[in-house]
Amino acid sequence: MSKLLPNLASAVELHDMPIDQLEQLAGEIREVLCNLVATRTAHFASNLGVVELCIALHSVFDFRNDRLIWDTGHQVYPHKLVTGRYKDFGTIRTKGGLMGYPNPNESEYDLFMTGHASCSVSTAMGLRSGDQLLGNDAHSVAVIGDGAFPSGIVFEAMNNVVRFKKKTLVILNDNKMSICPRVGGMANYLDRLRTNTYYTGLKTEVVKALNKVPVFGDPVERFLAQLKESVKAGLHGGMLFEDLGFRYIGPIDGHNITILRKYLAMVKEMPDPVLLHVVTEKGHGFRPAEEDPVFFHTPPAFVEENGKAVPKKSSGSPAYTNVVRDAIQQQMEADSRVTVMTAAMCQGNKLEPIRDKFPEQFFDVGICESHAVAFAAGQAKAGLRPIVNIYSTFLQRSYDQIFQEVCLQDLPVVFTMDRAGLTGPDGPTHHGVFDIGYMRIFPNMVCMAPGDAHDLPQMLDLALKLEHPSSIRYPKTNAVTVAGDRSPVELGKGELLKWSHDGMIICCGTQLDDCLKAADRLAKEGINVGVINARFIKPLDEELLLRALNESSYVVTVEEGSLAGGFGSALLELACQHGVNTSHIRRLGIPDQFVEHGERAELLADLGIDSDGIVRTCRQLSTQLQT
Amino acid sequence: MSKLLPNLASAVELHDMPIDQLEQLAGEIREVLCNLVATRTAHFASNLGVVELCIALHSVFDFRNDRLIWDTGHQVYPHKLVTGRYKDFGTIRTKGGLMGYPNPNESEYDLFMTGHASCSVSTAMGLRSGDQLLGNDAHSVAVIGDGAFPSGIVFEAMNNVVRFKKKTLVILNDNKMSICPRVGGMANYLDRLRTNTYYTGLKTEVVKALNKVPVFGDPVERFLAQLKESVKAGLHGGMLFEDLGFRYIGPIDGHNITILRKYLAMVKEMPDPVLLHVVTEKGHGFRPAEEDPVFFHTPPAFVEENGKAVPKKSSGSPAYTNVVRDAIQQQMEADSRVTVMTAAMCQGNKLEPIRDKFPEQFFDVGICESHAVAFAAGQAKAGLRPIVNIYSTFLQRSYDQIFQEVCLQDLPVVFTMDRAGLTGPDGPTHHGVFDIGYMRIFPNMVCMAPGDAHDLPQMLDLALKLEHPSSIRYPKTNAVTVAGDRSPVELGKGELLKWSHDGMIICCGTQLDDCLKAADRLAKEGINVGVINARFIKPLDEELLLRALNESSYVVTVEEGSLAGGFGSALLELACQHGVNTSHIRRLGIPDQFVEHGERAELLADLGIDSDGIVRTCRQLSTQLQT
Repeated sequence: MSKLLPNLASAVELHDMPIDQLEQLAGEIREVLCNLVATRTAHFASNLGVVELCIALHSVFDFRNDRLIWDTGHQVYPHKLVTGRYKDFGTIRTKGGLMGYPNPNESEYDLFMTGHASCSVSTAMGLRSGDQLLGNDAHSVAVIGDGAFPSGIVFEAMNNVVRFKKKTLVILNDNKMSICPRVGGMANYLDRLRTNTYYTGLKTEVVKALNKVPVFGDPVERFLAQLKESVKAGLHGGMLFEDLGFRYIGPIDGHNITILRKYLAMVKEMPDPVLLHVVTEKGHGFRPAEEDPVFFHTPPAFVEENGKAVPKKSSGSPAYTNVVRDAIQQQMEADSRVTVMTAAMCQGNKLEPIRDKFPEQFFDVGICESHAVAFAAGQAKAGLRPIVNIYSTFLQRSYDQIFQEVCLQDLPVVFTMDRAGLTGPDGPTHHGVFDIGYMRIFPNMVCMAPGDAHDLPQMLDLALKLEHPSSIRYPKTNAVTVAGDRSPVELGKGELLKWSHDGMIICCGTQLDDCLKAADRLAKEGINVGVINARFIKPLDEELLLRALNESSYVVTVEEGSLAGGFGSALLELACQHGVNTSHIRRLGIPDQFVEHGERAELLADLGIDSDGIVRTCRQLSTQLQT
Repeated sequence: MSKLLPNLASAVELHDMPIDQLEQLAGEIREVLCNLVATRTAHFASNLGVVELCIALHSVFDFRNDRLIWDTGHQVYPHKLVTGRYKDFGTIRTKGGLMGYPNPNESEYDLFMTGHASCSVSTAMGLRSGDQLLGNDAHSVAVIGDGAFPSGIVFEAMNNVVRFKKKTLVILNDNKMSICPRVGGMANYLDRLRTNTYYTGLKTEVVKALNKVPVFGDPVERFLAQLKESVKAGLHGGMLFEDLGFRYIGPIDGHNITILRKYLAMVKEMPDPVLLHVVTEKGHGFRPAEEDPVFFHTPPAFVEENGKAVPKKSSGSPAYTNVVRDAIQQQMEADSRVTVMTAAMCQGNKLEPIRDKFPEQFFDVGICESHAVAFAAGQAKAGLRPIVNIYSTFLQRSYDQIFQEVCLQDLPVVFTMDRAGLTGPDGPTHHGVFDIGYMRIFPNMVCMAPGDAHDLPQMLDLALKLEHPSSIRYPKTNAVTVAGDRSPVELGKGELLKWSHDGMIICCGTQLDDCLKAADRLAKEGINVGVINARFIKPLDEELLLRALNESSYVVTVEEGSLAGGFGSALLELACQHGVNTSHIRRLGIPDQFVEHGERAELLADLGIDSDGIVRTCRQLSTQLQT
């Protein structure tokens, strides 16, 4: 049997394929996915779960004109494979290769680069609205997982669906999982809906009978009419969605291409917005992933041995994520007022041991960052010491709650911002490069960036002792501890590691080790530069930093964050305020552009924020100085 | 009959007051509210609507220990009156006086300063969670309007209520209004619930009868059981909330203190989280406000004549809000691709004429800023030219959508940020001081600040021609047009109005007129300073600004925004990048603090961002220069 996938010229070919070929295609896609994860870390279980849905969608719609948004785009691999990217698929998540998320620059079939969850319903509605006003007769389809579904913005979008009629389709891909098992009332509700499937035929009969009940003007008879509607809606299921203006259809089997095609063709013709409830299995078709979809969400490269996945290599020293987790756990052991929030990232933040050990103090609120922060503010007001443990980029979702609920009230909420900086293969949706700018702008907020693993537990300890909000940012990489006689973390104090009148490097964050290495290398060239571990973005160590500015020939700032409004800018502001010259300052960090995906080290090297880059900058400044 | 309100020592006294006295108190509170709005602009209709609810709450709970959050705190006036602030009430919304929102600094009865809507359910749940863990046996109560209710964060909170049991009460204050008439599926749903009231007795009987239906293991009989549950839930009403884990009670009459007290006492004892649906009338008890609650949301000072409200004085020249509205309307007349979004602020943004004239291109999405921006992104992708017209401070709600859905995709969405700067009597929740920092940090975003009314329509025109996202910020004040021979707005170009080698003022925004006045005053003292209308925060007019930095003795930047990461910082970054000295730069703007309420002019004067302040700064710099 010859392979279909390598010769698929266009997704439109799926329209005419017989069902057995579509099923063959599903098998081939699964094979490609399994081969991929044997070579590198990649999103896996969620992609295995949508193979049939993806094939069915492309076989019923024509997404050259119709609109398709994959919410939380990490489930986009099968879509990439059937839309002309099979040949390049081996490059996925590598620098210069395919992105692990939808990418409009790769294909006209990718409309939005989506890494943050839950906006698909809004953007699909926007597309439908635009097409309608411009006279483009296209369908809009959003595919959203049940993990992303309880996010506030989904509800906001659904609440606005009343303005829409036909050709607006939301597909709820219900695999009973976020990345971790899902939580909340909506999850329970979906579970109840799933138990409804067996009664489809019966329901139809009862509704028919009820339709024959007459309706009169008398209150009691009006009551009967109301009762009738209640029964119909209740039987139908999905009343919650129908109340908002959707036609609810489902749940249907998301791994049966025939059924999927039948229902998609049907809802395509419906005169109302439709919510189609599709039940899938995360990891479907690969036994180990079916059994442990949490591990297999983004597994490290592995080989299969006797139905078990064996990771190919160990991951080196513990990540900063683990260092923070251990520090949090230690604090929780010492103080029962300490709680921790995660927004469906229990696994990513390695919080499982805390969840298991402190169930009453652990809160997974689902992908609801806004709620997480406001909820933490309430806890802090009541006297607890909540830690909001969310990736830097996802915490952007709660910008306004950080402002109003936390900073304006001056409440002691601690933000531990994981993945601050360049996250690597996930790319621009996941890089956490704006937090220095967005955190330091708020009054009352204390902003910290540890130089290494040594600083982290002490910073968390300090944060929990403060009567004000505070934040700690750290990157997605293995933890390093800088050698030497280290000073303890003190509020608003930097750490002078080496002094030089010739030039000073002021490091904001975990490039500290690179800075010290750069200084060592430069010393061998006869160039003498000192190093400061800034530790605090706010309040700045004014005394130490002004001394460097005033007494050293040049100053280089290093940060793994956006240069606009970042740490270097804070230093410029300080200098300006004190009338100190700044023409001898150079700022290394992320310029005004979105940084693509690639290994973190590659990206840092490209931007000159690694040891080599720091050496180059210092060498250049020293040379300028001599001439 | 002697007055009760002036002698009310504590809200606890309401516990023992007979119902006729509570009703008398309601009348007295209404009188105070009516007297207040005869003297100044204040929130009115919403406060009239919650008088009885407020009294009932304080008479049943003890909020010295129990927790009460008023969502969108502008409905907090009756609460302030019964919690010891009657005597100071005349100072409300004036500088140094009471705040028009809850303020923890004023009273232990105010827990959160709430000006942005919809976080009350989250914070109340946080308080309950904290009290529970700390062993404080207190009730948590959130009062939230039906306008705020469809915001995503409310849904996020409700989805997390499954973790809670007793003593968690959400009161839905349903007055059928946001500030403008509400929109969306939830609004329709609440309307249907309101029609349920008449059947309370009947329902109970039917539910009793249904409880007698036996349940067996056979599929058909299980179907019957399911039918029974459906009927019960459907009869009960509020199934949408019950599906999420609440007990739904209501709707009940929100102006009947006896009924309110009866239900509050009942739900206080319930073992589950409760959503109590209370129906009120915005403006209740004052005929003109009942009839036109939109106008009477925050009416200007008025006197009542023959049952009509007559404004006391005219409001001077049109506000920038109106200038922008007219410019938007002109664009919509010329180009049918232009759409406009508002988040329930049709009235605040003066968009009524556009809503009426272009109903297909006008979108009020309710208090759902996140959805508004993602929806606009979808429209832009489809080829429209959406304008997102939201207050600077409320747009913070969509920080992440501005990042991912708009800037990362590089879509031509235009943000017109009203109320950018100090909004005046509303205070710190409403000041829009962070937008320069949060907008300019994003790649692809063009950031504009008009110097006056002349610049605004041209900036909007430019924005709509760009193939990138853009933003325009303007304050809440009357529009000024600076005289003279003006240059047209061009991308990335500032406007040089007057040159001086002695000193240059670089103005970012509508302080331009103040800057020119300051320059005139200084000229009379023999101090020569020039003025630049910066117009662009991003991209900066590098040539013009570097010329000022290089060729003038000092430079003063002026902006009505946060100094951290603001326009002045952008100038420092530019200077640093070009190795230009910055020790001769002074930056005027909002320092690292929350600015209290007061008249905008008072606040600007305090911060030295008005004509006087600019004169002082320039005079000082000129003097330093001479010595």
